[in-house]
Amino acid sequence: MSFTVTILGSGAAVPTLKRGTTSQFVSCQQRSILIDCGEGTQIQMRKFKVKFQGIQIILISHLHGDHVFGLCGLISTMQLLGRKEAIIVVGPVGIKEFLMNQFKITGYYNGFPIDFRELEPETSGIVFEDKCVEIQTFPLSHRIQTQGYRINEKPGKRGLDKEAFDETGISTSYIQKLISGEDVVDNEGNIVKSADVTYSPKPTKSYAFCSDTAYHTPIIESIKNVDLLYHEATFTDHESERATETFHSTAKQAATIALKSNAKRLILGHFSARYKTLEIHKEEAQSIFERVFIPEDGELFYV
Amino acid sequence: MSFTVTILGSGAAVPTLKRGTTSQFVSCQQRSILIDCGEGTQIQMRKFKVKFQGIQIILISHLHGDHVFGLCGLISTMQLLGRKEAIIVVGPVGIKEFLMNQFKITGYYNGFPIDFRELEPETSGIVFEDKCVEIQTFPLSHRIQTQGYRINEKPGKRGLDKEAFDETGISTSYIQKLISGEDVVDNEGNIVKSADVTYSPKPTKSYAFCSDTAYHTPIIESIKNVDLLYHEATFTDHESERATETFHSTAKQAATIALKSNAKRLILGHFSARYKTLEIHKEEAQSIFERVFIPEDGELFYV
Repeated sequence: MSFTVTILGSGAAVPTLKRGTTSQFVSCQQRSILIDCGEGTQIQMRKFKVKFQGIQIILISHLHGDHVFGLCGLISTMQLLGRKEAIIVVGPVGIKEFLMNQFKITGYYNGFPIDFRELEPETSGIVFEDKCVEIQTFPLSHRIQTQGYRINEKPGKRGLDKEAFDETGISTSYIQKLISGEDVVDNEGNIVKSADVTYSPKPTKSYAFCSDTAYHTPIIESIKNVDLLYHEATFTDHESERATETFHSTAKQAATIALKSNAKRLILGHFSARYKTLEIHKEEAQSIFERVFIPEDGELFYV
Repeated sequence: MSFTVTILGSGAAVPTLKRGTTSQFVSCQQRSILIDCGEGTQIQMRKFKVKFQGIQIILISHLHGDHVFGLCGLISTMQLLGRKEAIIVVGPVGIKEFLMNQFKITGYYNGFPIDFRELEPETSGIVFEDKCVEIQTFPLSHRIQTQGYRINEKPGKRGLDKEAFDETGISTSYIQKLISGEDVVDNEGNIVKSADVTYSPKPTKSYAFCSDTAYHTPIIESIKNVDLLYHEATFTDHESERATETFHSTAKQAATIALKSNAKRLILGHFSARYKTLEIHKEEAQSIFERVFIPEDGELFYV
């Protein structure tokens, strides 16, 4: 199963023709997850051929308009197109009121169930878990409560080493236990160790989303060793004072977080529309951390 | 001065890559007016090079999401880009709560003044008037309170017939009165009639917007003799039952309204996304009323 991130919007504050406001689609094994939902996200999904009816979980970082103004429209469209399956919406306290107020007035909400999971300020820990994925949250440092998210793939089953298994001569009815990692003893007292007849599962991968946030080292513990990190880089070094004032980060600060957390790769985003090109963001980040990507909207990354 | 309508979104219910949800930009003399504001309207305005900071008046037909989900984002963007000028927002009761709830939670509202003018159900009459434009509202027939709008250009000043004026030999200080339509008597008792030394002003034009609505003949009185009529035509004749059930119109019904109101031209819109082409809408409408237009998003019409 694949683990991918599609950037639906990588601009800050206001949507432009080049960049939508924040939204990402994450596909992790059987799970389809949307992170944030700025205005026009449903249109970006159509443009980039992301099937939005498959989304099971929506993670919202914070309640600034450029991260949520597309949410009510998206859910309305899901309903109008006949969705019946429930959806989970995780986000800071207020996300339910934000949506329900709009539904009350626009009169659309009578469709599928929404399971709201509101996070109190400073929440850390697991917000969703099933057989294939675990989603953790952690506080970022922004002007209002803002949550980061880390999506960890869960280990799959071990692969059977058919030759080694056949040599043991035990019944095939033990295979399920063995590939689940259990050692077995058959009716005749033969001991077969799982490790001797199976391969290790594919190493699991992880992705972390950190936007919006000031440079904030307490997050390092939560995003340690991620395979892919998205960290906002609204500004370049030249505007570092403005970054501090507005609780945003520079490209260098994002790269420093990537370095200190031992991330494998870094995607920058949430770019201020003031920048005509993002060469300086890239250069400044790469002076600290090599594997930096400046995404275009619609770009797909394999975790 | 010109009087134009730019179609920003002509689709029904959900935005697609081909058609945005309802929104129109009307430029009438010095006034810039937005009618409705579906999700992504601000992006459509960028695409079609409409200067949204110039908008002075926003007219909202009704509080279904496909007509208002872009409004909070648009106003937020206006603020973020530094707008200080007040704006007038006209719409059904609830429009203020709809916006203010979102601003309360997303924390953006601290910028320019918004002058809300909420219309009680069944409101008819003038909602805005100044020297150059008069805006009237009238009730449409939809599932919830919905208001139509008619924008009437006001007569400009009369043009001076310089030759005729010079022949009178009176002081040029009377010109302003004469082109305002007043007759004058100078100090020597000479009577000069305005009509004798001035041309009639350019005939005034008018535009009417009717969406969303069932076929509803009481609106005819309000839109009589309009130069340009926009009337929704969600469905073709084949879905006329569905049109009736959902309080929408067919193309034939829109054309019948245009004919009975003696409109000069008709733009159809609010097309259901189920139609791959709109040839049948056009044919059916033209069987009743000749001057029918099927707009593309971004298309500009001179009133």
